[in-house]
Amino acid sequence: MSSAPAGPEIARLMKLLARLPGLGPRSARRAVLELVRQREQLLMPLHAALGEVAAKVCTCTTCGNIDVSDPCRICAAPGRDDSVICVVEEVGDLWALERAAAFRGRYHVLGGHLSALDGIGPDDLNLASLARRAAAHETEEVILAMNATIDGQTTAHYIMDILEDKNVKISRLAHGVPVGGELDYLDEGTLSAAMAARRPFQGL
Amino acid sequence: MSSAPAGPEIARLMKLLARLPGLGPRSARRAVLELVRQREQLLMPLHAALGEVAAKVCTCTTCGNIDVSDPCRICAAPGRDDSVICVVEEVGDLWALERAAAFRGRYHVLGGHLSALDGIGPDDLNLASLARRAAAHETEEVILAMNATIDGQTTAHYIMDILEDKNVKISRLAHGVPVGGELDYLDEGTLSAAMAARRPFQGL
Repeated sequence: MSSAPAGPEIARLMKLLARLPGLGPRSARRAVLELVRQREQLLMPLHAALGEVAAKVCTCTTCGNIDVSDPCRICAAPGRDDSVICVVEEVGDLWALERAAAFRGRYHVLGGHLSALDGIGPDDLNLASLARRAAAHETEEVILAMNATIDGQTTAHYIMDILEDKNVKISRLAHGVPVGGELDYLDEGTLSAAMAARRPFQGL
Repeated sequence: MSSAPAGPEIARLMKLLARLPGLGPRSARRAVLELVRQREQLLMPLHAALGEVAAKVCTCTTCGNIDVSDPCRICAAPGRDDSVICVVEEVGDLWALERAAAFRGRYHVLGGHLSALDGIGPDDLNLASLARRAAAHETEEVILAMNATIDGQTTAHYIMDILEDKNVKISRLAHGVPVGGELDYLDEGTLSAAMAARRPFQGL
């Protein structure tokens, strides 16, 4: 049974769209219909945008971020603090921190985390250049902003060991109650961490 | 605050992807990262597929289906029954019926339904050619397969009136308990319809 009573070109587009995260076969079908319905406003611009990104996108050789220039706009930005490097697992994590606008230093993207199960070892991550950057004389602090998962924390410990002799301060993100979070819905680990790291109350 | 610390090309792609049904800003961001990560396997093929569909896709002038040929592959198929026309609101409905493989006649896509609220009148739908097709001597039956919504049924009644003098049998899809459905979860309208249209029990 074919997925659509239409030409192979349409079926192929549907199949590719279904591979995007967040889209399944059903929503890919709806997306194709929407694309065809809005040929000038959506299909053609999306085609052009994909072509442009395909032609220009590259990985920053300094930090591993994805951008249309190398070095990326964060590594190239003059106003940022060269003395702090924030290490993240993925480009998406970097983007999330930038959206929060909570950090004005430089980044380093590992491209994943250590995982014995998935066979991802230190050589598969962007680690060699991190050691080099941490050893540079302007670097004073490295923030390990891995995910708070087993694999993320394993990776953080591994990086701790690598950077131990580099004469830099090593820090990690705080654990605690998420802003807006309700205690009743939080896991024991988070509550214990929040309790242990409690701070003097001075209002907000 | 920009949505991504990356070039305008990437931001633009993200914005366009977020307009696809089923994708919001967050999943569009994940989709962009996935596209960039799988440049050769996903980004480039998707770009090519969109270009091909943009170049070839057209609306069948006979039935209103979307395909890469006109007449579409259903109108052109030699093995189908010319005496029955199934009228649907949207191309997606046609595709759904084809997936069910429950109908071997021809289709007619209205391109929507009558809606006073949205200002959609008879002239906005593909109705003139339906009257013409229903009047053709080979046509014996027109199945009104509108959605079981107020607007869908209003449209069905309107088409009934148009086709009254055309000497064709007019039918509609059966209402009843969906296969796999549990009575406790069905609305009263469906249960009443299923009860009124009950059939002699002969096993499945």
